[in-house]
Amino acid sequence: MPVNAPLNRKLRMGLIGGGQGSFIGRVHATAALLDNRAELVAGALSSDPVKAKASAPDYDIPADRAYTSVPEMIDAELKLPADQRVDFVSVATPNHTHFPIAAAFAKAGFNVFCDKPLTFDLAQAEQLAEIVRDSGVVFAVTHNYTGYPLVRQAREMVMNGELGEINAIRAFYIQGWLRTRLEAENQKQAAWRTDPSKSGIAGCFGDIGTHAYNLGRFITGLIPEDISAHLKIFEPGRALDDYGTAIIRFGNGALGTVTASQISHGRENDLWIEVDGTKGSLEWHQEEPNKLLVRMNGKPHQIYTRNGGPYLGALAGVSTRLPSGHPEAFFEAFANIYAAAYDDIVKRANGQSFDREKSLYPSIGDGVDGMNFITQCVASSQQNGAWLKLKHDLCRS
Amino acid sequence: MPVNAPLNRKLRMGLIGGGQGSFIGRVHATAALLDNRAELVAGALSSDPVKAKASAPDYDIPADRAYTSVPEMIDAELKLPADQRVDFVSVATPNHTHFPIAAAFAKAGFNVFCDKPLTFDLAQAEQLAEIVRDSGVVFAVTHNYTGYPLVRQAREMVMNGELGEINAIRAFYIQGWLRTRLEAENQKQAAWRTDPSKSGIAGCFGDIGTHAYNLGRFITGLIPEDISAHLKIFEPGRALDDYGTAIIRFGNGALGTVTASQISHGRENDLWIEVDGTKGSLEWHQEEPNKLLVRMNGKPHQIYTRNGGPYLGALAGVSTRLPSGHPEAFFEAFANIYAAAYDDIVKRANGQSFDREKSLYPSIGDGVDGMNFITQCVASSQQNGAWLKLKHDLCRS
Amino acid sequence: MPVNAPLNRKLRMGLIGGGQGSFIGRVHATAALLDNRAELVAGALSSDPVKAKASAPDYDIPADRAYTSVPEMIDAELKLPADQRVDFVSVATPNHTHFPIAAAFAKAGFNVFCDKPLTFDLAQAEQLAEIVRDSGVVFAVTHNYTGYPLVRQAREMVMNGELGEINAIRAFYIQGWLRTRLEAENQKQAAWRTDPSKSGIAGCFGDIGTHAYNLGRFITGLIPEDISAHLKIFEPGRALDDYGTAIIRFGNGALGTVTASQISHGRENDLWIEVDGTKGSLEWHQEEPNKLLVRMNGKPHQIYTRNGGPYLGALAGVSTRLPSGHPEAFFEAFANIYAAAYDDIVKRANGQSFDREKSLYPSIGDGVDGMNFITQCVASSQQNGAWLKLKHDLCRS
Amino acid sequence: MPVNAPLNRKLRMGLIGGGQGSFIGRVHATAALLDNRAELVAGALSSDPVKAKASAPDYDIPADRAYTSVPEMIDAELKLPADQRVDFVSVATPNHTHFPIAAAFAKAGFNVFCDKPLTFDLAQAEQLAEIVRDSGVVFAVTHNYTGYPLVRQAREMVMNGELGEINAIRAFYIQGWLRTRLEAENQKQAAWRTDPSKSGIAGCFGDIGTHAYNLGRFITGLIPEDISAHLKIFEPGRALDDYGTAIIRFGNGALGTVTASQISHGRENDLWIEVDGTKGSLEWHQEEPNKLLVRMNGKPHQIYTRNGGPYLGALAGVSTRLPSGHPEAFFEAFANIYAAAYDDIVKRANGQSFDREKSLYPSIGDGVDGMNFITQCVASSQQNGAWLKLKHDLCRS
Repeated sequence: MPVNAPLNRKLRMGLIGGGQGSFIGRVHATAALLDNRAELVAGALSSDPVKAKASAPDYDIPADRAYTSVPEMIDAELKLPADQRVDFVSVATPNHTHFPIAAAFAKAGFNVFCDKPLTFDLAQAEQLAEIVRDSGVVFAVTHNYTGYPLVRQAREMVMNGELGEINAIRAFYIQGWLRTRLEAENQKQAAWRTDPSKSGIAGCFGDIGTHAYNLGRFITGLIPEDISAHLKIFEPGRALDDYGTAIIRFGNGALGTVTASQISHGRENDLWIEVDGTKGSLEWHQEEPNKLLVRMNGKPHQIYTRNGGPYLGALAGVSTRLPSGHPEAFFEAFANIYAAAYDDIVKRANGQSFDREKSLYPSIGDGVDGMNFITQCVASSQQNGAWLKLKHDLCRS
Repeated sequence: MPVNAPLNRKLRMGLIGGGQGSFIGRVHATAALLDNRAELVAGALSSDPVKAKASAPDYDIPADRAYTSVPEMIDAELKLPADQRVDFVSVATPNHTHFPIAAAFAKAGFNVFCDKPLTFDLAQAEQLAEIVRDSGVVFAVTHNYTGYPLVRQAREMVMNGELGEINAIRAFYIQGWLRTRLEAENQKQAAWRTDPSKSGIAGCFGDIGTHAYNLGRFITGLIPEDISAHLKIFEPGRALDDYGTAIIRFGNGALGTVTASQISHGRENDLWIEVDGTKGSLEWHQEEPNKLLVRMNGKPHQIYTRNGGPYLGALAGVSTRLPSGHPEAFFEAFANIYAAAYDDIVKRANGQSFDREKSLYPSIGDGVDGMNFITQCVASSQQNGAWLKLKHDLCRS
Repeated sequence: MPVNAPLNRKLRMGLIGGGQGSFIGRVHATAALLDNRAELVAGALSSDPVKAKASAPDYDIPADRAYTSVPEMIDAELKLPADQRVDFVSVATPNHTHFPIAAAFAKAGFNVFCDKPLTFDLAQAEQLAEIVRDSGVVFAVTHNYTGYPLVRQAREMVMNGELGEINAIRAFYIQGWLRTRLEAENQKQAAWRTDPSKSGIAGCFGDIGTHAYNLGRFITGLIPEDISAHLKIFEPGRALDDYGTAIIRFGNGALGTVTASQISHGRENDLWIEVDGTKGSLEWHQEEPNKLLVRMNGKPHQIYTRNGGPYLGALAGVSTRLPSGHPEAFFEAFANIYAAAYDDIVKRANGQSFDREKSLYPSIGDGVDGMNFITQCVASSQQNGAWLKLKHDLCRS
Repeated sequence: MPVNAPLNRKLRMGLIGGGQGSFIGRVHATAALLDNRAELVAGALSSDPVKAKASAPDYDIPADRAYTSVPEMIDAELKLPADQRVDFVSVATPNHTHFPIAAAFAKAGFNVFCDKPLTFDLAQAEQLAEIVRDSGVVFAVTHNYTGYPLVRQAREMVMNGELGEINAIRAFYIQGWLRTRLEAENQKQAAWRTDPSKSGIAGCFGDIGTHAYNLGRFITGLIPEDISAHLKIFEPGRALDDYGTAIIRFGNGALGTVTASQISHGRENDLWIEVDGTKGSLEWHQEEPNKLLVRMNGKPHQIYTRNGGPYLGALAGVSTRLPSGHPEAFFEAFANIYAAAYDDIVKRANGQSFDREKSLYPSIGDGVDGMNFITQCVASSQQNGAWLKLKHDLCRS
C-alpha cells in the first residue's frame, strides 16, 4: 500500500519544543516517523532562539525551517507552497504554553498533536475546543497509553458487551522519581512539573493522574458524574501535589478510583488498570503491555497477548506491527496515536469528513475531560473531599 | 525442645463451630495442630445438637466431649480435672455469635481464639475488651494474614526504620465469588455473610475490608485519625455492601486507602498491600506469599524470599518451617497466629505475665480496631463519605 | 465422614529418622498428621540411641516407644496388641539406610513410606520391589511433588488426551545451596548428600534430578527407552555431581530433558516442567504451585488455578483443602501423598485389594524407575554420554 | 549532537528483500531508521521484478532506485556520485541467498547488515569471512537479541567478573507457530524456513536455536570446545528439524545447553537464558526484556531494570532511549544493532579503524560461529549425538 493512500505521500511534520534536554520531543519525533508515513521537516524547538537553532540538526531539520518562535513558524510555513508546508505540528512543550501554541496553529489551519494535560487550566481547554471545532483541524492529545494494542482490545471488549455492565474501575499510576526534590537540583523534567506557573494547579494529578483517569474513560466510555479527591504533598517544600487518590461516580452507578504517586520508592512507570463488569473482569499493566488478563468466575484465567490470535478484535489488529512474542512497547503505542490521527489528517486533506467524537485516538474532547478532572480534583481536595460535578458534554462514550 | 516447654505437654483445644459445611472450622483445627503443640479434645461444633454430635468424629473428638451448646461445654469442662480441661477455645462461628461465646469463655477463664470481625457491633467489641482485660485470658483474633513470615518481616522493617517515615498505605482485598447472589442459592458461606442479622452492618467491608485495613495497621503501626468511605451494593437484591473504598488519614500525616471487592470476576483471594516510606517501599501479595518486594530509587528491585537468608529479621525467622523455595502458605500463616498465642498461653499457665498490647498475634485491641473501622466505614458511606473519627485508644503502634 | 472409614480410627505411624538436625523427618510428621487421619505413636528417630531418646518429646512420642534401633522397634511393635501396633512407618533417613530399614519393615508386614531415592543402588531397589510384592504391604515413595493438585491435574489432562500425543518433556530442578562446600563445614544436610558412602553414586542427580525425571514420568506416563547424560562436579573437592543434564528417548518417539543443578546462585527449589503435546502444552512451577499454564496456539493462554472451578478434573478435586486463592503449598502436597496411600492402607486393613501399579501416589515401581534413572545417568556420563537402556518393566504408564 | 558526527549527515541505506509478504524487511527498515541516523534510499526488494517495483512505495523508495536485481543495484549505485550512493545494505532475504548477495556487496565495498543464519552452509560462511576481511567493510549479523540493553548489561557483568567464573549456560528458544504444517498451506514465512533448498540443513536450529546459542556466547564469551545434539522432526511430513537440544562443552569446563522448539503450543517467542557463575547467576527473558534477574545465595534476589539506575554499566546506558518503566522492546533492540554498527560505518567513512572482533554488534565472526553451531548440531544428531568439535578461531571472547 502506498504511503498514506490516497494522498500518496508522506505527511510533513513540525515539532514544537523538543530542544536539548527534552525527553518527550524525541518521543514525538520517533513515534511520528516510526511507520514511515511522515517526515520531520520543520520545528520551533525551543523558546531560546540559540537553542532552537542548535537543536535542529539532532532532528535532521534544515536550518531554514528551524524557527525561533511559533509566530515566525506559522508565518513562514503559510508562505510556503502547499506541497511543502507542514501538515501538522506536535506540541511538546510545558503545559502553560500548550494553549497559545495549539490555538495559533489550529486557527491557522494546521492539524495539531498536543501533549497532555491539554492546557494550563480548564477555561483554556474549553476555549481551545471551540477553536478546534471552528477550524476543522484534526486534533490529537497524546494520552499515549491508549495506543497500546491491548488497551484498545479492552475498549473493544467493553463496547462489545463482553464484560457486561461495568461496575468498577481501579486505575493507578505509581512512580517514585520525585521522592526527592529533584526540582531543587535543577533537573529540568522535575522543575517545570512542580512549578505552578508552568504545570498548572496540579502536580502529580496533572502529570500522571490524568493519564490513569483517561485510561479508564477510554476503555469503558463510562460517563463521569462527580468526583471526590484527596491530594497530598509529601516532599517538604514542594509546591504541588505528589500523591493523591480520587473517587469517581459514573452515570451508570459504577465506582471508579484513581490513585497516583510520584513518591513511591523504586516504582518506575507503573500505570495499571482493573475493570470489573458483570460478565468478566480485565487487568492491564503498562510495564508489561503485551498481555491483558481476562477473568471470569469458574473459568481459567485468560492471558490475551498482543497479536496472539483470532480471538482479538479489529482494533488490536490494526494497532500492532510485530508477531506475538516479539514485544512492542512505549514507542509503538505512541506511534499508534499518530497513525490513527494520520488517517483523519489524510481524510481531511482529501476533503473527507472524520468523526472527532469517535476517534480511535484521544481528541480534543478527551483533553477537556482531562482538564475537568484535574480542576475538580484540586477543588475537591481543597474542600476536604467534597463531591464536585464533572462536566461531560465533550466526553466520549 | 519438649512440647510447650516448660509446660511440657500439648495444649488442649476446644472448637466452637466447624460443623459439617463449615470451611473455617477445619482451618482452625489444622492450623492449631500443625506443629504438634496442641490436641483437639472437645468441641461445640454446631448450634444444631444433632449436627454437633455427628461432626465430632471428623475431628476425632470423643463423643462425651462433643457438646451441644456453649453453656453445656463451659459447665462440663470446668468440672473436669485441671489436667484434662481445655486450655483454649477457638470460635469459628458466624459474626453475630462471637460476642456471647467469646465473652462466656473468657469470663470462665478460658483463653480464646476468635474469628474476625471480632463481634456483631462495636459496642460488643468494647465490652469484650473489658471482659478480656478483667479476666486476664489470652485472646487472639485470627487476622490470619499477619501470620505470614514476610508480613512480619515487613512490620519489622517498618519498626526498624528501614523504610523511613511512612507516607502511604494502599491495601486491597479483591474477590469475585459473590459476583452472583450465591446467598439466594442457599450457599452456606454466602448466606450468613450477606445477612445483616448474622454478619453485622457490613458485608464485604466486614468480611475482607477489615483484613486489608488490619494488614496495613499491623505492618506500619500508624495510628488512624479519621476515615471517609464509599460502600456499594452491586449485586441486585443483596442486603450488604459487596464493594467499597475507604481513605484513612493517619496521625503522622500519612494517607491510606482500603479497597475491597467481592464482585470482581475471577479474582480469588487477592489481598495485597503497598507501603511507601521516605527511604523505601514494600509490596506483598497474599496469593504469592513467599516473596516481598522491596524497592529503593536508583537501586535494583529486591525480592525478599521466605527463609531466603540472613538479611531477614528475627520475626520472619521464627515464623517459618521450611527452607526457602519450599513454599509455605495459608495454613502455616494461620498456624503462626496460633503459635505466637500459644507462647502467651504457656506463660499464663506458668503464672508469667505477657504483653497484650505488643503481641505478635492480633489481639483484642486489633479486634476492636477492626470493628471501629467497619462501623465508621458504614457510617461515613451513609453520610456520603463524611470524615469520621477513628478511636485509637486500643490501637497497637 | 468418620476418620478412615470404614476403619473408623486414626492410623498409627512410626517415624524412622527425623532426630535433631533433620529437616525431612519433621516434614513427614507434619504431612502425615495434617488431616487428622493418623497419629504418631512410635519411632526410631536416630541411629544414635541417646539422640533417639532425646528427640522423642519433640514429636510427642512416648518414651517407651522411642526405640533405639529398627530391629528393636520391629520386635517390640510386633509384640504389641494389634490395636496398638503401628500401621505404617515413614523412613526419613539417608539413602544408604533405606533398603535395610524398608525391607525389614515390609517383611514384617508393616506398610512403608520411604524417601527417595529409593535405595543406595539399583540392585537393592529391585530386591526391595520383590520383597514388597511378596509381603503385600502398601509402599509409598515420597516423590512428594506429584502430590500437588495441579500436577495431578496435569496427569489427568494427559491421560484424557487433552494435550494430544506428547512430544516433549522439559524438566528442571535448579538449586543453589551447594554452591559452596557446605559439606566441609559439617552442615548435616550437605554432608550425607555429598558422601558417596551415604548418598550412593549420584549427588545432584540422586537428590533432585530424580524428582524432575519422576515428575515428567508421573504426568505423562510415557515409557522411557534410553538415556544419555552428562554430569559435572563444579565445586572443587566435591565427590559427587552437583550439576547435570540428561536426554531421554521415550517409546512413543518423544524427547525428554532433565536438567538439575545445586550450584545456581540464589535459586531456591526451582523445580519446573514443560510438556508439549500435539493439542496443547503445559507449564508448572513448584515455587508457584497454585497455578498451571495451559496453552494452545491461537487461543488466550490459560491459567488453571488450584480449586479454580469445575474445569478441573477429579484428581485435582480430591487433592485440595482450601478455596482457590488461599494458597496451599509444600506440606499439603506432601500430605496428599500420605492421604492417597492411607486409602490403600485402609483397604489392606480391611482385606480389600489395591492396585500398586495405578496408585495415585508414587509406589515401589516409581522408586525402582528412579534408581534406574540415576544408575544409567551416572553410567552414561562416565561413557561420555553414551545412550543406555532404561528398564521399564515396573514403570507406570 | 549532529547526526552521525563527524560525518554530519544521515547514512544512506539500501534494502535487499523485504517485498510484500515479508516480515523481517520492515523490521530492518524500522530499526535502521529509528534514531534518524539513516534514510532508506534504494532497494532490491524482491527477486520478482514486478514485486520489486511494486513494493518500493511502501518504503518510500523512489522508483529509479527500486532495482530488480542485486547486480543491477550494485552497478547503478557504483555509478552514482559518492554523496548519493548507499552507505550500506541490509540483506533480509531467505538464507540460501545471503552469501551471493552479501559477498557481492562486500566485494563492491558496501557495508552490510545480514540476517542470520549467515549463509546456506559453513563453507560459504568461511568464504564470506575472508571476503569481508579483504574488503574492509563493516559487517553486522542481526543476532538482534544481543541488542537488548539488559543483555548487554549481562555481558558487561560477566566481563567485569561480577559473576565469577562461568559454570553453566542454559539457553532456550521455544515457539509454537510451526505446530501444524503451515508450509503446506503456502504460508510464506513457514515455506522457506522448512525447505532445505532455502533454509539449509537445519530448520528450528538454524532459525532460532542459533539465536539461543549466540545469546549465551555473546553474554559469556566462553569459547566452545565441542557439541552433542539431538534434533527431531515432530510434525509429520516436515523436511527439517522442528525441535532439538544440544549440549556444549566450553573451554573453561563450563557446560551449556541449547533447547529450541517450534512445536510448543501457544509459546510465542520465548527466548530466555540462565547463566550460573561462581559468584552470582543471571536470568533474562526476551518476552519481558526490561528486567534482568541477578541472584546471589543468601541475598535478596535483584531485579535490574532497563535504565533503572547508576548500578547499570556503560553498555546498558548507551543502549536505551526511554526512562525506566517506559518499556522498550524488539524494535529498539534491533535498532541497537544498527546503531552500534553505524558507529563503525562512520569510522570507516572517516578513514578510522574499527575492531571487528570486539564489536558491540554481532559481526562476521559471530555469523561464522553460528553456522559452525548449526553444522555440527546436524552432524552430531545424525551420528546419534556424537561429540563433534566446534571451530573457534573466529569466536569472540
